[in-house]
Amino acid sequence: MSNWKLPRKNWIKMIEIITIGDEILIGQIVDTNSAWMSVQLNKAGFPISQITSVHDDEEQILNTLNRAISGNDIVLITGGLGPTKDDITKLTLCSYFKTRLVFDESVYQHITKLYSHRPSVMNELTRTQAMVPENCTIIQNSVGTAPIMWFEPDGKVVVSMPGVPFEMQKVLIEEIIPRLSARFPRQHIVHQTVQVYGYGESDLAIKIADWENALPSYLHLAYLPSFGIVKLRLSGLMTDKELLEREMESQFEKLSDRLGESIVAYDDLPIEHTLSTILRQKKLTISTAESCTGGNVARRITLIPGSSDIFKGSVVAYDNSMKANVLGVSESDLMEFGAVSKEVVEQMAEKVRILAGSDLSVAVSGIAGPSGGTAEKPVGTVWIAVAIRDDIVSKKFQFGDFPREVIIERSTTAALMMVLNGIKSLQDNY
Amino acid sequence: MSNWKLPRKNWIKMIEIITIGDEILIGQIVDTNSAWMSVQLNKAGFPISQITSVHDDEEQILNTLNRAISGNDIVLITGGLGPTKDDITKLTLCSYFKTRLVFDESVYQHITKLYSHRPSVMNELTRTQAMVPENCTIIQNSVGTAPIMWFEPDGKVVVSMPGVPFEMQKVLIEEIIPRLSARFPRQHIVHQTVQVYGYGESDLAIKIADWENALPSYLHLAYLPSFGIVKLRLSGLMTDKELLEREMESQFEKLSDRLGESIVAYDDLPIEHTLSTILRQKKLTISTAESCTGGNVARRITLIPGSSDIFKGSVVAYDNSMKANVLGVSESDLMEFGAVSKEVVEQMAEKVRILAGSDLSVAVSGIAGPSGGTAEKPVGTVWIAVAIRDDIVSKKFQFGDFPREVIIERSTTAALMMVLNGIKSLQDNY
Repeated sequence: MSNWKLPRKNWIKMIEIITIGDEILIGQIVDTNSAWMSVQLNKAGFPISQITSVHDDEEQILNTLNRAISGNDIVLITGGLGPTKDDITKLTLCSYFKTRLVFDESVYQHITKLYSHRPSVMNELTRTQAMVPENCTIIQNSVGTAPIMWFEPDGKVVVSMPGVPFEMQKVLIEEIIPRLSARFPRQHIVHQTVQVYGYGESDLAIKIADWENALPSYLHLAYLPSFGIVKLRLSGLMTDKELLEREMESQFEKLSDRLGESIVAYDDLPIEHTLSTILRQKKLTISTAESCTGGNVARRITLIPGSSDIFKGSVVAYDNSMKANVLGVSESDLMEFGAVSKEVVEQMAEKVRILAGSDLSVAVSGIAGPSGGTAEKPVGTVWIAVAIRDDIVSKKFQFGDFPREVIIERSTTAALMMVLNGIKSLQDNY
Repeated sequence: MSNWKLPRKNWIKMIEIITIGDEILIGQIVDTNSAWMSVQLNKAGFPISQITSVHDDEEQILNTLNRAISGNDIVLITGGLGPTKDDITKLTLCSYFKTRLVFDESVYQHITKLYSHRPSVMNELTRTQAMVPENCTIIQNSVGTAPIMWFEPDGKVVVSMPGVPFEMQKVLIEEIIPRLSARFPRQHIVHQTVQVYGYGESDLAIKIADWENALPSYLHLAYLPSFGIVKLRLSGLMTDKELLEREMESQFEKLSDRLGESIVAYDDLPIEHTLSTILRQKKLTISTAESCTGGNVARRITLIPGSSDIFKGSVVAYDNSMKANVLGVSESDLMEFGAVSKEVVEQMAEKVRILAGSDLSVAVSGIAGPSGGTAEKPVGTVWIAVAIRDDIVSKKFQFGDFPREVIIERSTTAALMMVLNGIKSLQDNY
C-alpha cells in the first residue's frame, strides 16, 4: 500500500482535538464530543490527527498546547469553560497567549438576552463569562453562556469551545467549520461503510480476501465488529473527489456481488434507520413486545425523528403477569414452556401486533443475566418472534455468557434484523 | 490551593491510556474504553495522566509510545489487535521493542479451546493470533482470540490489550490491575460524588460558595451538570486514606445541612439505581407508560441487574390508538386536550398501574421534536404523572428547544425524580 502512505501522512497532520476535564480522566464521563466533532470535520474535509484528553491542570494544558500546535494546523479545544472555580481553560489560554481578561460588552449583552428567555435570573458568577482574553476573536455561543475564543498564532488556528455537547455542536456546525473552510485548503476525504450480518470478523475477512487484496492502494479497508454486525469501511483521501467516489462505488458493487443479502446497510447508521426507511417506503407500521430488552428496541426506533409514522408502540412485559394480563399470553403456556420459549414469544408478537393495530411486530424474551440462567436455558438464551400480518417466524439465539448490556444490545440488533429480513421476504403485492 | 499542587503533580504522572484505531479519529465509534478503565484504575489507586487516541499508523504509534513512556510509569494500550490487515498494533510493538513475532503454543491451545465452545471453526486468520512478540510476557485473553502483551522497558510497564470492551474489561480486572498493584506502590485516591437536583450550575455554586471556600486544600471540588442534575465531586489524594475519607464525609455532612432534600443521591450512579434501591427496600413495584421517551425510562430501569424484583413492565403508547386501546385513555380527552396534557398523562399513569398490577407508575407524554411543536405546546413541552396507589401527581415541564435526544434524557431524569420524590412523601405506615 505504498501510494496510501503519502496522503496518509497529510491525513494525520491536520487537526488535534484536546478535551479538558478531570471528569474525563477519572472516567466520570465518556468523551462523546470528540467522536461527534470528528465526523463533522471529516465530512467538511478536515482530517483529525489525534485526540488528547488532559486534566484541568495549567501545566499539563500548556505542554499539550505546545505539542499540539507545533504538529498541527488547527487545534480545537473543548471543556473547562464553566463559571465555577474548577474550570481554568480561559485563564490558561491567557497565560499561553500572554494576554489578560477584559470585559466584553457584546458577550454581556448576549448573556443578558439568553436570560430574558429563562425562568432564572443572571447571577454574578454567570456575569464573569463576559470576561474574555484581550487578543482573541470572540464568537457568540447562541445557546449557552460561555463564549467561543478563536486565536491565530503564527498562521495556525486555536479554538476553545464549551464542553456541553449541544452547545459545542451548534457552534462547530454554524460557526467554526464555515470559518475553517474559508481559511484552509481542504482535501477530499471519503469514508463509506457497508454493514454485514451473519459473519464473524475473521470469516468475513477470508471470504473477501481477494477483493480486499485487489483494492487500489489509495483505498483503505477497516473491519469494525459491533454486536453481531461487522462494518466494513473504505476510506480514501484524494484531490479528485469524483474519481474517488466512483472507484468506491465500483468496489462496493463488486463486494455486493460477493456478499449479496448479507450486506444489510450501505451506510453507517444504526440498523433501525434502514428499517425505518423501508417501513416508511412500504407504508408499514410496527410494534414491539419486549421482555429482556426492557424497551430498548422501542427506544432505538423512537430516537429517530418522525418515528411516529412507522411506530405504534410497545408493551414491555417484563413481569409474567404483564405477559398474561396485558398481552394475553396463555398462562398455562407460561407455566409449561417458561417465559423464554418459542410458544410465549410467538404469542407476544401476535398479541402486541393486534393490540397496537400495526402491520408488523417483533417480540423478544430472553435471559440477560447475570442471574436467571439454568442448565437448559443459560444466560444469553433469547427467543425472538416476528409477526407480519398473519405470519409468524421465530428463532432461538444463544448469545453466550456476556455482560447484561451486551446481551441486551445483541438481542436488539437481532430483533431489528429479523424484522428487516421478514420485510424482504414479503411479496411486492402483499 | 497550594497543598493541592504537590499531590496533583504526582497524580498526573502515572498512567497514560493510548487507544489505537482510525475508527476513533473519524468518529465512527466513541471511545468508551478509556472512561471505564479510568474508573477501575482510580479505584485501585492508579491515577490517569492522559488519554490519547491515535490512528492505525506505525509512525504515529511509535512517536506516541516514545512520549507516553518517557512521561509515565505505566502505558496501557487498547485496540488494533484484530486478525485483519488494518490492525497493526502487534507489528508496531515489535518494531518499537526491536523484536520479532514467534509462534506461541499456549496461545494456540487457548484459542483452540475457545473455538471448541463456538458454533464456527477456527480459520487460518484466527490462527495468526498465536504469533506474538518474542520478548514480552503473554497473558491469555479468556474471552477472545487476541492475547495480551506485557512489556517492561527500563522498569516501566507497557501493556497492549484488545479494544473489544468486554474482553478488555475482563482482562483489566482479572489480570492487569492485580499485577500492577503487586508491582507499583499505590496512592489513595478518593472521589466522592453527590447529585443535586433543582439548581442550575452557577446558582448552586453561589449557594455553596462559603462551603467551597472553606474546603481543606487537599480536597478538590468539581461541578458536572447532566440533564437537569448537577453532580458535585470531591477528589482527594493522600497517604492517609482514613483521614481523607473521614474529612470528605464530614464535608458532605455540612453540605447536606445546606442543601437538604436537593441532594438526591450520595453516589455517582444513574438516578435509577437510587430509585431501584428504595423500591426494593420498601418492597414496592413500578410500571411506566411512555410516549415521547419511547421506552427509555423502562430501559434505564431494566439495565440494572435484578430489576425484575421492582419493575413490572411498560406500555410504550407512542400512537394515540395505543393510548386509547391498550391503556384505555379516554378518546374524547385525547381529542379535547391532546396527547400532551395533564388529563391524558394522568390517565396513562393510572391505567398502566392497574394493568401492570404495580404499586407505583409513572407516565410521560411530550413533544421531543424536532417537529410536532405548536405555539401553545412548543418542542420541549412534557407532562409527567406519577401514580402511587390511588394518588396521582402531575407536572408540566418546559425543557426548551433542545435536540430530541436531550429532551428524551431530561424527561427520563425528570420522571425518575418525580417517582423518587413521590416515594419520599409516602407515610412510613403506608
